[in-house]
Amino acid sequence: MTLDLHADPVDLTCALVDIPSVSGSEAAIADAVQAALEGLGHLEVVRNGDAVLARTNLGRASRVVLAGHLDTVPVNENLPVRRDGEVLHGLGTVDMKGGDAVFLHLAATVTEPRHDLTFVFYDCEEVEAVRNGLGRIQRELPEWLAGELAIVGEPSNAVIEAGCQGTMRVELRLAGRRAHTARAWMGENAIHALVEPLRRLAGYRPRDVEIDGLTYREGLQAVRVSGGVAGNVVPDEAVLAVNFRFAPDRSPEQAEAHLREVFDGFDLSVVDVSAGALPGLTAPAAAELVRAAGGKAAAKLGWTDVARFAALGMPAVNFGPGDPTLAHTRQEHVWAGEIRQVAGVLRDFLSGR
Amino acid sequence: MTLDLHADPVDLTCALVDIPSVSGSEAAIADAVQAALEGLGHLEVVRNGDAVLARTNLGRASRVVLAGHLDTVPVNENLPVRRDGEVLHGLGTVDMKGGDAVFLHLAATVTEPRHDLTFVFYDCEEVEAVRNGLGRIQRELPEWLAGELAIVGEPSNAVIEAGCQGTMRVELRLAGRRAHTARAWMGENAIHALVEPLRRLAGYRPRDVEIDGLTYREGLQAVRVSGGVAGNVVPDEAVLAVNFRFAPDRSPEQAEAHLREVFDGFDLSVVDVSAGALPGLTAPAAAELVRAAGGKAAAKLGWTDVARFAALGMPAVNFGPGDPTLAHTRQEHVWAGEIRQVAGVLRDFLSGR
Repeated sequence: MTLDLHADPVDLTCALVDIPSVSGSEAAIADAVQAALEGLGHLEVVRNGDAVLARTNLGRASRVVLAGHLDTVPVNENLPVRRDGEVLHGLGTVDMKGGDAVFLHLAATVTEPRHDLTFVFYDCEEVEAVRNGLGRIQRELPEWLAGELAIVGEPSNAVIEAGCQGTMRVELRLAGRRAHTARAWMGENAIHALVEPLRRLAGYRPRDVEIDGLTYREGLQAVRVSGGVAGNVVPDEAVLAVNFRFAPDRSPEQAEAHLREVFDGFDLSVVDVSAGALPGLTAPAAAELVRAAGGKAAAKLGWTDVARFAALGMPAVNFGPGDPTLAHTRQEHVWAGEIRQVAGVLRDFLSGR
Repeated sequence: MTLDLHADPVDLTCALVDIPSVSGSEAAIADAVQAALEGLGHLEVVRNGDAVLARTNLGRASRVVLAGHLDTVPVNENLPVRRDGEVLHGLGTVDMKGGDAVFLHLAATVTEPRHDLTFVFYDCEEVEAVRNGLGRIQRELPEWLAGELAIVGEPSNAVIEAGCQGTMRVELRLAGRRAHTARAWMGENAIHALVEPLRRLAGYRPRDVEIDGLTYREGLQAVRVSGGVAGNVVPDEAVLAVNFRFAPDRSPEQAEAHLREVFDGFDLSVVDVSAGALPGLTAPAAAELVRAAGGKAAAKLGWTDVARFAALGMPAVNFGPGDPTLAHTRQEHVWAGEIRQVAGVLRDFLSGR
């Protein structure tokens, strides 16, 4: 399979979709991407597992990293690609071979960029974090991720999404004392004890936080509740799992301290946490990108690999074609116009028009 | 195996314990009980499945039914019987071969009772209600359960326990609307909605109801709570299961109406219900029995087959040797003194001394 990186990025998206690349089986697509990038002649290209890295070394004052994962979730009767006028249907059209196609096209066609460029096409984003190719590169080739701005091409409806919320999951454990329900006064009902933490949750007023002109809405939600021994037993334990989505002006430590205050008096343990990412849109390269996009940017709500770059201290944004709510669905499809729009904004930004 | 019904009921208890009779395998013990009762000569004896029925036909003005199940829960390293002075250890010593032994001994030795007597030794009490031998007899030989008083020999610490609480299980179903927790304002959290029913539960003040001098304590307890879709999803459903133990002055319909009032505004469905049983201690035969026991009686807390007789409109009590909290434990054991005490009270009552 030979990829023509100079072709219309819409056609290139179709070509990439038609190389199946479910997580763990990215060798074929990585081979094709590597061969195409090496064929350009002006880039330093490195292979790392089934990730392909390429960069310019033009001595520019700043460097922009463009990163996209090559893998997809499992096939769901949605291959090969089906083009219906201006709509491309198929696995990966949204998540995220449209973004990959844009980056590959720019690698071929923007040969005199204003910033040095690093392209990162990586494996295993759709599976457990421990297998994530970007994490492996960070451990093995950290210098390849350095720069003044990172652009992750995950679908964002062709809108620049900056930073992201952090997320923390905690468990509250309520204790009681077992008894037969016919002698309930000998026990202490742990499920009844949920009333107070649930009251605090239901009455919680989340913050809306403005950072660099973007609004991050926090949220505190019960995501699981469980308790009960048998139909005739006063239960001695109940567990309430809560998910806190916090604005990136809080560190994980501050987020935990806040939850300990909200649930003061209860047995709380942190199950997992991912730090948020500040948008960093005041950094020069980021500000230029926003200008190239017509001044529009939004706060990212979910958590993406953008946060990995943010953790390295880099401004990092999400910018790619496709509606993220269609990702991982059988009906995955993207408008060709969004692919061209993202390509156009990035071309303007990188070439300094 | 030949049973000597004239022997000390403590020795008879040991003999019965040493005939294994896990539910569904009662043929051997039923054979032995049938042969022994037929050997007495003064009783009409009938076999029904692995139940054995026997009765006097003396033309007395009233009839007392004495019922005990022959089966046990599965063996748990607690056979054969082990006698340690005045304590008998082993499966069934408490639940309820001590009671069976007392009834068999009385069948043999009280040949001139004040009331006609019916003895019911039945199978499959320890398993699903649909297999219960007493239920089968009620369907196939209902005249054998008729009488002015029923005494069920389940362990009751040798205290007369009268009537029993009813029990009803209901489920409350809370509905919401799913959303990603990063966009929680688009959803509606069904777990948060538990706060109001839990508040009502935690604040519920159960009644203490006095009937025939006995106090029935009601109770309303959550026994299970569940809800949750995934760690990042606002849940759209939560379920709260509640067990209501109600005094026998309420019918099941009244109990349900009460719960619908307590949980007004919520989606409530009844999962199962067993009616309670009024103590009926003002009935003449029941009052005589209480007098024979020294005037002491207590309210039964759990639900037993006593309620089957109560449903037939008969006063019915629980009266047997053994601590019910030891039933179904490997450490099951009974004091010989309790077996003799129950035998003595019933002998006085039945022979009219």
